[in-house]
Parts: sequence; structure tokens; C-alpha cells
Amino acid sequence: MSTARDLAATPGLSQIAEVLAAGGDRLSGLLERAEDRLGEVAVGYGAELQGHVSGTLSAGGKRLRPMLVFISAGDESSDDLVTAAVAVELLHMATLVHDDVLDGAQLRRGRPTVFASGGRAAATATGDLLFARAFSVLAAVGRADALGALSDASSALARGELLQREDAWSAAVAVERYLERCRLKTARLFAAACRLGALLGDPGPDSAPVLAAFGERIGLAFQIFDDVLDVSGPSERTGKARGTDLLDGTVTLPLILARERDSGLAALDLRRAVSDEASAAEVCDRIAETGALEEARKHALRFVAAAKQELRAIKDIGERQRSLLELVADGVVERYA
Amino acid sequence: MSTARDLAATPGLSQIAEVLAAGGDRLSGLLERAEDRLGEVAVGYGAELQGHVSGTLSAGGKRLRPMLVFISAGDESSDDLVTAAVAVELLHMATLVHDDVLDGAQLRRGRPTVFASGGRAAATATGDLLFARAFSVLAAVGRADALGALSDASSALARGELLQREDAWSAAVAVERYLERCRLKTARLFAAACRLGALLGDPGPDSAPVLAAFGERIGLAFQIFDDVLDVSGPSERTGKARGTDLLDGTVTLPLILARERDSGLAALDLRRAVSDEASAAEVCDRIAETGALEEARKHALRFVAAAKQELRAIKDIGERQRSLLELVADGVVERYA
Repeated sequence: MSTARDLAATPGLSQIAEVLAAGGDRLSGLLERAEDRLGEVAVGYGAELQGHVSGTLSAGGKRLRPMLVFISAGDESSDDLVTAAVAVELLHMATLVHDDVLDGAQLRRGRPTVFASGGRAAATATGDLLFARAFSVLAAVGRADALGALSDASSALARGELLQREDAWSAAVAVERYLERCRLKTARLFAAACRLGALLGDPGPDSAPVLAAFGERIGLAFQIFDDVLDVSGPSERTGKARGTDLLDGTVTLPLILARERDSGLAALDLRRAVSDEASAAEVCDRIAETGALEEARKHALRFVAAAKQELRAIKDIGERQRSLLELVADGVVERYA
Repeated sequence: MSTARDLAATPGLSQIAEVLAAGGDRLSGLLERAEDRLGEVAVGYGAELQGHVSGTLSAGGKRLRPMLVFISAGDESSDDLVTAAVAVELLHMATLVHDDVLDGAQLRRGRPTVFASGGRAAATATGDLLFARAFSVLAAVGRADALGALSDASSALARGELLQREDAWSAAVAVERYLERCRLKTARLFAAACRLGALLGDPGPDSAPVLAAFGERIGLAFQIFDDVLDVSGPSERTGKARGTDLLDGTVTLPLILARERDSGLAALDLRRAVSDEASAAEVCDRIAETGALEEARKHALRFVAAAKQELRAIKDIGERQRSLLELVADGVVERYA
């Protein structure tokens, strides 16, 4: 269980702990209910699968997406809302499990991945089951608009994964293309979380597009900042070596911006230049030297500002809800800052 | 497009062509509408993905599951019904694409698999997208009971895939365990197809459980018969070498029954004994010599009979609908007979 105390103790997550504190008993209570439901989700699907799912679940994570569902809902605390948060987190977990298969990743959040412990087939099927369970739990709510939001995000995630593979090692990825990838791989699920909260909560369907737009912008900020952290480290705080994106051939904003600033870096063939953690760290240092990290952080902050701007379009949003949403918006770019 | 003429020309599918002929303009028209919708489903998701999806689609297939949706619906011909059929076929295709990744399969229905043409990552993401699109199109219908049927089938498929991997090469798989696997991997989606037809068609929700039970039984018969064909061939008609299940370590009913009859076969370590097509064909011959294939066919026929028995529980089913359903039931075990 992620409690406010756990989160506050997690490096770089003090801002999220602040959100939790500000969210009070309602938010903590909802997150606890979501966590309980997540624990039950794989029961009855076989011991092996249950092991993989509960392993993935207990590895934790910030539960940022469920939090967005809850905060977007205003004061609503229904079971349907908890179900929506669970569905969003399940979909997120499904993509993580499949990403680990594709990356051949052995560890996630310091624990063996399903791929590492169960092999490729078990991990693929576990991911598929998490997908299915996400839709299954949400179907029980009986709201087609809610299911549409989840399935659109799910289509976008798959499309984003494909784009990322298409762009691997490419020297020609421009900022716009990179942002489109972030939108598909990350931001659309953030948007879905906010949309679900609006649909099933106090704001209602009329406010859903605006809250979804807010979610998309903080999702973009979140992903950009994540990509900055991959270059900047420090690895003892991010929990992974610097430059893992470079090793995968994933071209992110820091590299794109650095290539514009350093012609030597622009001419570098990533596939040859980056072969291990040491060479990846070297390229990270070169990227940092160009000032690209500060520039990328500015991009992220612009999306945070745009997200907050969106909120002004909602007339009847409560002061408490607005300030919570703004705290989350600030939170996604203040990790390890 | 699969027309009655194409299907009649496909070896072993004459029975299905008969279903189509008996189904008349309504059934052919609905199948054409489903085919058109399937062709549009990947539009707007990037050229690479669209290529993979349309390749998978144009490779054909019997569209047996869409047919079950339509026949279960009675005289209904709504767009929602077409959407449900499309969703079921998309889910089926998603599992095929992921299965091919896990099996490292190069060909399916004589065409390169997505795995072969695009690689592991593209195929995993393509499968994920097909999953997502299945739920996405069905969500637009706005019926939570329909989405529940699809997502339950999807959970079952993933669970069945896991069971199959768990049981690989095992000498201890009993008939009951095998049937449970068939239920999860195949029959639950057949059941969902019939349930969806009932829910969105003339029979309505009250008849949905009975039609689903019918679908489950013919799904079991279908899978058993498929597993018999893998042993019996002939490969020029099934389109694949005999014993591919044996090469994968997938223990199916013919082998289970043959082991009970031939102690030498029971003692055989599959992993050592089956290493190539020639040795697989040898083991197939040994299985056939025990009479296990006839026994397995009888199992399948018992499920066909049980399926027809289920239909009697529906009071107000039309004679035409009943006879079409019975034709399909007979059809699933008359391939290559």
C-alpha cells in the first residue's frame, strides 16, 4: 500500500505526498480502496498469473493515474470511481509488462520483471490478462463513455509503442514527432484518467473534455521530465542507469535538442557509439553539456503552465479541486528537482 | 472478402458454405458489412500498423465467430450487431498475432506473420492494438453487458495461453485439464460470440446464457477437432505440417488418449523424441495407430450433440435460426472429414 508516509519517504515524491496530504481522508481512502481492489484482480486466474500480477502490483508505483481519476472527480467517492481508477492502473501495468518483454528488462522498481521471472510467454499473457481485466472491471460500471475513454487510451498506447520502435536509432526524429509519441505513449492515458474522473464524478460529461486536455498536458510534461531524468540521473535516485533510452535506441527530447546544438553529437551513430552503460553515460554527459536538459525542462514546464491554463476554462470547479490539480501538475516535473 | 464461393472452394469448408447458403442474403450481407468494417479498423493508426493489420485481415480465415454472432441474433441486422462481430474477430486476431510471436511462427494461412515481417516488437504492439480496437469499437455500441461478454472472453484467452505454456511438454496433463484449456483458449470466445448475438439480436438477454452455452460446446468441439487434424493431417489440406503441436510441446487430446493406450508412448520424453517434422510425423503415426484419433473425434461429436441439446432449452427460437445453428455445430467437426 502506498500511504502518504511511504510516498514522502520516496526520493523526489515529496510533491505527490503533499498532494496526498492536501487531498485529506477522501483521497487516501479512495487510494486504499483502489489498492485493495487491485490486489483482488488476479484472484481466480491461476496461481502463476496471480503471482506475476501481485508481484507487479506490490512493486508499487506512484499510483499517479488513479490519483488523477480521484482528484478530477471532485468530491465524489463512489465504487464506480474506484473501479475506473483500478482500470486505468491495470492498463498502465499491462503496458509496463509488455514493454519489459520488448526491452528484455530484468528489473523494474528494483524487482524482477514478469519477463525475468516467468519468461516471454508468461509475460505476454500476463500483459494480455491485465488488458482484459482493465476492460472487464470497467465494463461492470456500465458506462459506455467511460469504456470509450479507456479503449481510446489503449489504442493510443499501442500506437505509441509502435512509433517508438519505428523511430529507434533514428537521427531524423524531430521535436514534433517526439511529442506525438509522448502524447500516444503517455499523455492519452493521463487524459483518460482525468476524463474518467470527470465523467463519473462531480464535474460530469460537460467538463470531461477540459479535464482530459489538462491530463494530456501534464502527461506530456511527465514524459518529457522522465526523459530528462534518464539523461541527468542521478541513477541512485532514478533507480536505473543513466542513458537506458540511448541503449534502447529511443531518441528523446534531450538528444534531439542536443543534436541541434552540437554537430558532433548530430553526426554520432548511436548504434555504434552507445554499447554499454559507460558509453551511454558519456553521451549523457555530452548531451548535458549542450544545455539541452534545461531546454527540455522548459518544454515540460510550458506544458504544466498550459495544463493549469486549461483549468481556467472550467467555470464551476471548486477551489480545493483546482488547487489539488495544480499541485499534481507541479508534481509531475518536480521529481528529483 | 470471404464469399460463399470462396469458402466452398476451401478444402473442408463445404459445410460452412452450406451455412452461408442457408443463411441467405441476410447472413452474406452482414458478413460483407463486417469485412468492410474490419478493413477500416486500422486506418489512422500509422502506415506500418495498418500494413500489419490489413495483412492479417486479408489472410482471410473463416470468420466463424462473426458468423456465430449473426446467426445467434435471429433476424436482427443492425449496425451494432456488425460492430459486435467485428469486435469478436478483432479479439481473435489479436490472440493469433500474439500466439505467433510466442511460437516464433513465420507463416499463418500461407502468409508471413506480423512477427515474421515486422519483428517481435511490431507484432506485440499490433496485437495490443487489435485488443484495444476490439474494445474500442464495441464501447461505441454503449452496452455494458456486451462489453462484459467480450472482456470475460479476453481474460479467459490470456489465462488459457498461460495454462498452455505451463503444461508444455508435460506427461501429466489429464483430459479434464486439457478441456479446461480448450474452454479458456477457444470455447469462451465462441460463447461470447453467441452471447453477443443474443444480447444485441432477437433472442435478447434472457436467451443469452443458453446461446452462450451452445457456443461454448461447439468451441470445445472445434478445438478438439483442430487438435485431431494436427495429428491426422493431411498437411496439404490443413496447410501446416503434422505434429506442430508436438513440436511446440503442446499436449492435446489425441496424445493424452494415446498415452493411455500405448505404454511406450506414455514413457516417451516428447522433448527428446520430437525434434523435427520427420520425428513429429512418426509420433503422429504412433498416436493414430492406438485409435486415439477416433476416440478424440467422438469427444468432439459429444460436444456437438450437447450443443444441440442446449438449443432445446430455448422455447421461442425460430426453426430457421435453430437449423442454422445446428449446421454450424455440425460444421465445426466436419472440416476435412
